[in-house]
Amino acid sequence: MIRAEIITIGNEILSGWTLNTNTHWLAIQLHSIGLPVSWMTTIADLADEINEAMKTASNRADIILCTGGLGPTPDDITKKTVADFFGTRLVQDNKTLEHVLKLFESRQITMPEINRNQAMVPASARLMYNPLGTAPGLIFEKDQRLFFFMPGVPHEMKKMVRDYVLQEITRVFKLPPMEIYILRTTGIPESRLFENLEEILKKYEDISVSFLPKLTGVDIKLKIATEPQPAHQRALDLLALIKKRIGKYIYSESESELAEVIGEMLIRKQLTLAVAESFTAGLITDWISDVPGCSRYFQGSVIAYCNESKVRELGVSPDTLERFGAVSEQTAREMALGVQRLFKTDCAIASTGIAGPGGATPGKPVGLCYLAAVCQDKVFVKKFNFGGERRSNKERGAMAALEALRRLI
Amino acid sequence: MIRAEIITIGNEILSGWTLNTNTHWLAIQLHSIGLPVSWMTTIADLADEINEAMKTASNRADIILCTGGLGPTPDDITKKTVADFFGTRLVQDNKTLEHVLKLFESRQITMPEINRNQAMVPASARLMYNPLGTAPGLIFEKDQRLFFFMPGVPHEMKKMVRDYVLQEITRVFKLPPMEIYILRTTGIPESRLFENLEEILKKYEDISVSFLPKLTGVDIKLKIATEPQPAHQRALDLLALIKKRIGKYIYSESESELAEVIGEMLIRKQLTLAVAESFTAGLITDWISDVPGCSRYFQGSVIAYCNESKVRELGVSPDTLERFGAVSEQTAREMALGVQRLFKTDCAIASTGIAGPGGATPGKPVGLCYLAAVCQDKVFVKKFNFGGERRSNKERGAMAALEALRRLI
Repeated sequence: MIRAEIITIGNEILSGWTLNTNTHWLAIQLHSIGLPVSWMTTIADLADEINEAMKTASNRADIILCTGGLGPTPDDITKKTVADFFGTRLVQDNKTLEHVLKLFESRQITMPEINRNQAMVPASARLMYNPLGTAPGLIFEKDQRLFFFMPGVPHEMKKMVRDYVLQEITRVFKLPPMEIYILRTTGIPESRLFENLEEILKKYEDISVSFLPKLTGVDIKLKIATEPQPAHQRALDLLALIKKRIGKYIYSESESELAEVIGEMLIRKQLTLAVAESFTAGLITDWISDVPGCSRYFQGSVIAYCNESKVRELGVSPDTLERFGAVSEQTAREMALGVQRLFKTDCAIASTGIAGPGGATPGKPVGLCYLAAVCQDKVFVKKFNFGGERRSNKERGAMAALEALRRLI
Repeated sequence: MIRAEIITIGNEILSGWTLNTNTHWLAIQLHSIGLPVSWMTTIADLADEINEAMKTASNRADIILCTGGLGPTPDDITKKTVADFFGTRLVQDNKTLEHVLKLFESRQITMPEINRNQAMVPASARLMYNPLGTAPGLIFEKDQRLFFFMPGVPHEMKKMVRDYVLQEITRVFKLPPMEIYILRTTGIPESRLFENLEEILKKYEDISVSFLPKLTGVDIKLKIATEPQPAHQRALDLLALIKKRIGKYIYSESESELAEVIGEMLIRKQLTLAVAESFTAGLITDWISDVPGCSRYFQGSVIAYCNESKVRELGVSPDTLERFGAVSEQTAREMALGVQRLFKTDCAIASTGIAGPGGATPGKPVGLCYLAAVCQDKVFVKKFNFGGERRSNKERGAMAALEALRRLI
């Protein structure tokens, strides 16, 4: 079996300053190409520690992935330490120097001299260029082992993994062919999902099925060996059974976020979208606008945090606010219809509620919200009571509002 | 120096299925009592791996904290392995058995027989009782080292740490009293910050200063020994020098986010706020509304994604859009003034730009944006060119816009 180790170099992780999300993301990527991670190690930015960890990893793992410690400041010592470990020295890479100079030029700031360090790289390393930052990544091959060194900044590291690391691993090592299927669900708790699927899963105990519950839903993952053919077919049968049983909760059969799925639906049906938010206050719009090209369907939003704005911009009737309150089915409906009218769109979403921790009144507890979705002349309003903390209320609300629209389109 | 190691035992972490938040939380708790974490290790639920990790940890750490693998099912082998490691055997603990029986009784379900295992504990361990679950925690003392074994379920582990672990550590070890200061900066790159502070830091090399760069700024952390008094005073002097040198970039001297800092300023000065977003499209509003109680100053936002909405809701002049374009200083200014007028607020923020990856035109590249801040009759507009990916552009833009407002208030 080919085994991988992930080493995180960084005092900020050890001190509890930063939550290490890099190893988690990396493990997911490596599993997706059939490579299991056997060890995760976090150490300080100290030469002795790095050496020790490199030695240990070389004795047990075939593929070693390190992140962190590649910055320009003196506490970033990974590059120097690693050069020593592989018995090589640092030399200037002109392509990197040029890139770093250009990066500062484009930001219209003069480059601090210290950044010249970023172009000094171990002579025997192959480089992974970093369009998003100043530190190039490094690849070493030694004794049939592959070593990768990457920056700790998450988006720089991720781009490097996608652009270089995964290809390099599959080039050098023969990994067992494997397919991973993902079914992303929302609107059904993990225990209920499990209850619904228990009987089916029992008949397919040889296939690895895992459940990942998150605030915004549960992802189901099936790991399927593509060989031999009968095993593969059996796994596909299970997949079909699961989809048949809980299909209406599945919003995506890939890594796509719900906002992306909705974007594709809107483009396909040539529909436009506007949003009126109060409870979720910007989060629905933020998710929608994270999708590249959303300007093809997304027109805009009104975040009507005060009641005046619900009346003035969205045309909610003062009588509705008076009789039912801002947190009511009626207000949610009028907000959605109002923003649909204002932006002249086909579809609209609206949220109103009490995100907490303050604002609760008798009969209207923290976490109570009303979410409305409109598609042409169809209107759907639903009441939820999430009852949690402010941020998780916003996230659950945004997800439920988008899901309401998905089912309506 | 007394050193700690955290060992996580769990296949679900290695497979990338679960994000490991336990070690992060533990590190924060240990730092709060002055105990630095030197290593974090994650291994599989395998006896050989557990043994190997225990041996390594015993050779380098004084305090070893393990989580995971204490459940009743056959794959949870930590307890048996650890008993062997310490040369002891499993015996029944009646208090635990009673607790487990009661737990199932209170849930009104008959106890699966397998849960009797939970009352079998290593004879030489002291127990940490677990009111929230079935697995008791274990404490071993050997060769002046302290070993803790806890369940991996976060809330069970946390309660055990609060109820037993921290007291036990401070009882056995004398830890140096320590203070931590945080300076959160934005608008200055790490390398420039370092250039500015290099000379000062060189004179105080005995004090631990670390830089944590993030997309939205750089946090500076000083660890200060509170004893002896002269050393403490020296550290406070350094802190004052740093603040004097780069003070204008510091938005917070605590863990507070920029949106919280602005919220406090607005409340103190009795000012109100509205937001007009295009480039950041909901993100500024999302951050502002994450602050509990923001309804005291935040009135609402218009996310004017299409040009029509910039004219219709925000009153941007069609002539401005025609002559300078939607991505221009003039449009940003008119958006901010427009939303200030619309919501009748004292302050306003606006963003317009090209978030990418599409939308660039000659002279207007991806990442170009104009951010405007208004406070009463003061207006400030600034051009940025972030040139990155969509999400990071939005985050940098939102941060820079909030910072512009902070400096204006």
